[in-house]
Amino acid sequence: MSEPEKSENIPDESAVKEIPNGGNPAKSKEDFDLAAIYVSDAQYNRNIYFDTSPQAVRLYLLYNHWLPKVLLYFFILVDLCLALFEEPAVLPLPSWATMLVELLCLLVFTIRLVHYAKVIPRDKFWKDPKNICIIVILMLTLVDMIIYGALKAADCYGVRWSRVLRPLLLVNVTEGRQLRRAFRSIRNALPQIFYVFLLFMFSVLIFSLMALKLLGKRGLKTIDGTPYFTSYLEIVFDLYVLVTTANSPDVMMPAYNASFVFAIFFILYILINTYIFMSVFLAVVYNNYKKYLKEEVRQLVRAKRHKMVRAFAVLQEQKEEGGEPVVTQANWNQVVHLVRPGISNAHRELLWSVCDDKNQGAIGKVAFVQLADLLNIEVITIKSRPHPLNSLCPALYQSAPSRLLCRMVQHRAFVIVYDLIILVNAVFIGLDEENPMIANSEWAFLALYLLEILLKLYVFEPRAFFSRHSFWNCVSTAQIQSTRFDTIIVVSALVATIVNSTMKSSGGYTSRQILDIVFILRVLRLIRVVDSIKRFRTIINTLIRIGPAILTFGQLIIVVYYIFAMVGMELFKDKVKFFEDPSDPAQLYCGNPLLKGSAFAQLNYCKNNFNNVVSSFILLVELTVVNQWHVLSRGFATVTHMSAIIFFVLFHIMVVIIIINIFVAFVLEAFFVEYSVDKGDLQTALERRIEELELAVAQEKLEDNLVNAMETMDNELGTSQAATPNVPSLMFKIASKRYRTVDALLQRMFEADLDPEDFAENDDPEAQGNGNFANPTFSSA
Amino acid sequence: MSEPEKSENIPDESAVKEIPNGGNPAKSKEDFDLAAIYVSDAQYNRNIYFDTSPQAVRLYLLYNHWLPKVLLYFFILVDLCLALFEEPAVLPLPSWATMLVELLCLLVFTIRLVHYAKVIPRDKFWKDPKNICIIVILMLTLVDMIIYGALKAADCYGVRWSRVLRPLLLVNVTEGRQLRRAFRSIRNALPQIFYVFLLFMFSVLIFSLMALKLLGKRGLKTIDGTPYFTSYLEIVFDLYVLVTTANSPDVMMPAYNASFVFAIFFILYILINTYIFMSVFLAVVYNNYKKYLKEEVRQLVRAKRHKMVRAFAVLQEQKEEGGEPVVTQANWNQVVHLVRPGISNAHRELLWSVCDDKNQGAIGKVAFVQLADLLNIEVITIKSRPHPLNSLCPALYQSAPSRLLCRMVQHRAFVIVYDLIILVNAVFIGLDEENPMIANSEWAFLALYLLEILLKLYVFEPRAFFSRHSFWNCVSTAQIQSTRFDTIIVVSALVATIVNSTMKSSGGYTSRQILDIVFILRVLRLIRVVDSIKRFRTIINTLIRIGPAILTFGQLIIVVYYIFAMVGMELFKDKVKFFEDPSDPAQLYCGNPLLKGSAFAQLNYCKNNFNNVVSSFILLVELTVVNQWHVLSRGFATVTHMSAIIFFVLFHIMVVIIIINIFVAFVLEAFFVEYSVDKGDLQTALERRIEELELAVAQEKLEDNLVNAMETMDNELGTSQAATPNVPSLMFKIASKRYRTVDALLQRMFEADLDPEDFAENDDPEAQGNGNFANPTFSSA
Repeated sequence: MSEPEKSENIPDESAVKEIPNGGNPAKSKEDFDLAAIYVSDAQYNRNIYFDTSPQAVRLYLLYNHWLPKVLLYFFILVDLCLALFEEPAVLPLPSWATMLVELLCLLVFTIRLVHYAKVIPRDKFWKDPKNICIIVILMLTLVDMIIYGALKAADCYGVRWSRVLRPLLLVNVTEGRQLRRAFRSIRNALPQIFYVFLLFMFSVLIFSLMALKLLGKRGLKTIDGTPYFTSYLEIVFDLYVLVTTANSPDVMMPAYNASFVFAIFFILYILINTYIFMSVFLAVVYNNYKKYLKEEVRQLVRAKRHKMVRAFAVLQEQKEEGGEPVVTQANWNQVVHLVRPGISNAHRELLWSVCDDKNQGAIGKVAFVQLADLLNIEVITIKSRPHPLNSLCPALYQSAPSRLLCRMVQHRAFVIVYDLIILVNAVFIGLDEENPMIANSEWAFLALYLLEILLKLYVFEPRAFFSRHSFWNCVSTAQIQSTRFDTIIVVSALVATIVNSTMKSSGGYTSRQILDIVFILRVLRLIRVVDSIKRFRTIINTLIRIGPAILTFGQLIIVVYYIFAMVGMELFKDKVKFFEDPSDPAQLYCGNPLLKGSAFAQLNYCKNNFNNVVSSFILLVELTVVNQWHVLSRGFATVTHMSAIIFFVLFHIMVVIIIINIFVAFVLEAFFVEYSVDKGDLQTALERRIEELELAVAQEKLEDNLVNAMETMDNELGTSQAATPNVPSLMFKIASKRYRTVDALLQRMFEADLDPEDFAENDDPEAQGNGNFANPTFSSA
Repeated sequence: MSEPEKSENIPDESAVKEIPNGGNPAKSKEDFDLAAIYVSDAQYNRNIYFDTSPQAVRLYLLYNHWLPKVLLYFFILVDLCLALFEEPAVLPLPSWATMLVELLCLLVFTIRLVHYAKVIPRDKFWKDPKNICIIVILMLTLVDMIIYGALKAADCYGVRWSRVLRPLLLVNVTEGRQLRRAFRSIRNALPQIFYVFLLFMFSVLIFSLMALKLLGKRGLKTIDGTPYFTSYLEIVFDLYVLVTTANSPDVMMPAYNASFVFAIFFILYILINTYIFMSVFLAVVYNNYKKYLKEEVRQLVRAKRHKMVRAFAVLQEQKEEGGEPVVTQANWNQVVHLVRPGISNAHRELLWSVCDDKNQGAIGKVAFVQLADLLNIEVITIKSRPHPLNSLCPALYQSAPSRLLCRMVQHRAFVIVYDLIILVNAVFIGLDEENPMIANSEWAFLALYLLEILLKLYVFEPRAFFSRHSFWNCVSTAQIQSTRFDTIIVVSALVATIVNSTMKSSGGYTSRQILDIVFILRVLRLIRVVDSIKRFRTIINTLIRIGPAILTFGQLIIVVYYIFAMVGMELFKDKVKFFEDPSDPAQLYCGNPLLKGSAFAQLNYCKNNFNNVVSSFILLVELTVVNQWHVLSRGFATVTHMSAIIFFVLFHIMVVIIIINIFVAFVLEAFFVEYSVDKGDLQTALERRIEELELAVAQEKLEDNLVNAMETMDNELGTSQAATPNVPSLMFKIASKRYRTVDALLQRMFEADLDPEDFAENDDPEAQGNGNFANPTFSSA
């Protein structure tokens, strides 16, 4: 039990730096750099096969630095946002300006690519399809710009067709790993989806034929008086729309009015095509997605262990003749320090003690390989510090009224009282704010909220509130978290309200924008109530946890939307117009006489158009939501050509049938993992170690109230303020439910199915030799 | 290897009957009856704790007979169908007539219940909630009928409120096991769903408040010119409807027209509430459903083994002093014969050889317990018989042209040619049938199809076509199956076409109904194409396999629909009227002046009403499909009271959020099982045994073409027609993918997670003693 002592006699920074000079002069700085890169790559699942020459390693370090990455994404964003300024533009800019910016972007991408080419061996570079993709995209864009510029100069009509390629950059940059994986999952699921889709289309076609035969000859009329179900293609489209339920029950009504027997036809149709086939689509997408993702994650894990074995090979030394190669603690410390510069020494000691569980001062390969996973487990170091007021003026802070106040604030009733205040506030918000009494009540509520914050600051350690770490990582207790969220909201609301009333009283002018912000802030305050109910917190925490992974889908959606928006803008721009002035007679038919009397114009959908990129995106969202998509697509088909409907049907198949189903599959899977998976082995080991070292913070107490728990422990020690040396002033807690990377979540998703003997495979030299760190690919099954 | 001989020297019926008199005179007929009942109960998962007195056993046998069961369901159907004739009626009957029929139904239910009471011990009867339920339903119905009769006699207005109880009979009859289980799953999932729902509603309310503050004061107008987003309750309803996407994008348009910034609000709302929350609902429903179902199935399996142990206890005898109790083959045969009277001797021998794998002539408890599962595995006995023409006129049938013809028909090209014919036929169907050329082409197609059937009859063994067994169980090869389906369709089409043209030529009058049938039959013929593509067949087979299980959901839906229809009819009957004559001016406002100018009337939804039970069901289907449900519910709220919307929202929550999600969960789970689960252990054992006995039909050959395979095997034997004694004339094949009962499917679904040591628990006398065969219940978690 020497570990707790160690964690108290923490070596200071200089001591850490001395370590390499201590026992192992054989390892050069380059070696450590290389090992650190391997470990870091393993930790973040980077699969880049870089050159191991010192120069390339230095370039590779630079390549992985956050600044160039952020710059790259910034320029991709700029490149994508150019659509706002290009014809058809939200804010028109001359085309030379946008093209200049685009050239700059292309330059940045080229530099990044050249940098990448310098990092990895030449043959690997040319074998990697994503590099080829980027080069092709850059070339095509350049060609397009030249052609467009020439056409413009000659006053001809030109199309910037290369704009559809822009979002593909997001997919093909080195950092778009998750996005590529999502696309690969889709691609792999496509054959199966395709067969189900064919069968589904066959069913639609057969039903359409039946509908034509059954209903076409009866002389029925639709509500507009047009003949009902007489053209086969029209029927196919109508029934396809019925699958999406968007024209239910309207499409059925004429037949149903004729006889209720026909309703059976439509009910059967909906049962088979909407309920059963759509469930089958979800099942097929889900199943394939899971299957391929599992395979990819398995390969990821293998690659990770592979990299750790390489790092081990760099650091290993023979402790005794003929013995197993090991890594000494000093070397290990050095590498961990390089991989995670900000790690606290106590935390590092803890990790070491988990690896070196037999306390030998050196670890073998198996223990070393764990390091990447260990670094991914977030351990929070909690320092129990006395309240500053307690240090400043102990007599006052420890006095009976002060202690009573602390008790009160920490009591459950305090929370309940404030929840009630919020509910009353909610009612007041709902009431008419023109009433001066109610307008003034806002000040009272703001005062109450401020009082709450001040009270909490008085009782709790202020630094616990504001530490970046626990805020962003959602690991602190819910109460502190919500308090912090609340503080931001309350202070913003206070500022906004003051600004608003100053403007009101000074000029009599009320800014609508500021008022809106005030209202939104007021309403957001209400969210706090949810947090004080434990069951809700659980659900919300799950949602927050799967949040980062959902962002990958956000990117996926943006890629698809962007491509469809670009194509849509070329096809449909200015065909439908929106007039700001509602009295304009052209507004009745959206500025296009072809739309006179159409449902599109009647429903006032004129603003749903492809006239700029923002409108296009909003329209695509509406199409994703599905309802009324047939009215929208028919509208655009009316102003162009019937075949335009293909564009909308394609969008529906791509986004609604495939991507939304993958999204649902992902949410389902993530929820099941949350419900069923327990902590990983390694995490358990780490936790056990923390407990052995008696550094654990009781989980239940933390859940209840972190600072409460601290206080209770202080109280148990009597009234002495400084923690005695027997009680550690440092405590650890595992942020068990938090995944640092999406990969870690995925890995955990399929952890149960991963072959535990996978590591053994990495041992054999053959696997090590082929060293394929490229993104895993599948041979077609 | 004595087994193959046995299966050839099949003991005839009389031999089987002699067996009980053979070695074990100790077992009486009652013992066998009792054991057979236990085995049969275990096989079908009946959990009835019946008296074991011979008299009760005889009654119990009668209780399980198919006739009283069918009668019971018939009378339940009659009872449910009474709604067609009761006020508001589709076909009005005097109330004394319907009440008389209802009394008859009640009598039948009472008799069945009394029968049940005689079968099981008195205390068990009164402890079972489902019996209490039935008694209460019967009493309440009787009371309601008396009150209603009295009110009618006094010319007062009466409500037949007990009608909502009728579908509950479906749930509470002994045979409604699956339905009860589904309801229990829902009930158990409710708490979790409830919390998610609360959170979801909180989110809707918060967004509504924000919408009120942001949009209410801007003086925006909806498309009808009414103020936009000014009443909080209206906003809540509008946003609730937006979650179902039914009013997208209409609800957004006024705000979007004012500024595109507001579109962000709606997109955020849809993302959170439609996509994320609805996925979470599915995840929660799915997870809970799976969890509880697994627990129920676990208990089912335990109960099953329990019953088998009891059967064993009845049959067991000590073979040698102090030895383990065993069941001899003679007794076992007797029981199997009682449980499944139609079993072939060869099949029984096969099952015995699986149980008694060491060939000892007697089996212990562990082997005996398998029997129930073994009986659930469907084994098809295939007899290879020569073609009757071959027997009648071998010279002709074996002649070169005949053999060539057989080859041709069996060739793949034959199928392809006929697929092409069907496609051409499809085009002809799509064309205008008024054209005489096309009308006559139908005869040509019919002739071609008939030719195909005749050719197949010539080539294939006719009995293979028409055997009941393989037809209903979908186990034969796809080609034969499709041929059979085709034969029915073609012959029906032929008959219908002939009837149609006879009527046409004789009276010149064409019956629309017959023409419709002809068209439908023609179109159905096209389905055959799907079957000739293997990938499609796989998908369709999966769908067919999960079909029976989906029927449980059909019952569930009917119960819920019926209750809502009854309530809806009382609330909304005759508020909205449909006029057959479209020129009636009242049709413009559905006969209710309150509806003038409403969307409900404008969209011509008058026939969507609660004026009779058929309309109500169709309306409820439309509400399940969700689209336009807000128009429908607003319509009914307009003609009654705003609070009527609660009825529709409740329906939405019950059916769309809970039941449809459970349906999707079930389909997903069933698909995953189909994709992933391999055959069970027992099935593997059975299959191995079949292979050992060299009685197997090669799976691949069967898949390809059953009769082809037969022929090939004949050919291998040279040209000899009668199978030599060395080659078994009987073959077995396991219908591996077919579940005889829904329970078997469920059991297989969760087989992987079932504790294999569960059997051990049943051995201890305590568990045996408590003998709780009632439906498994859960203590609230």
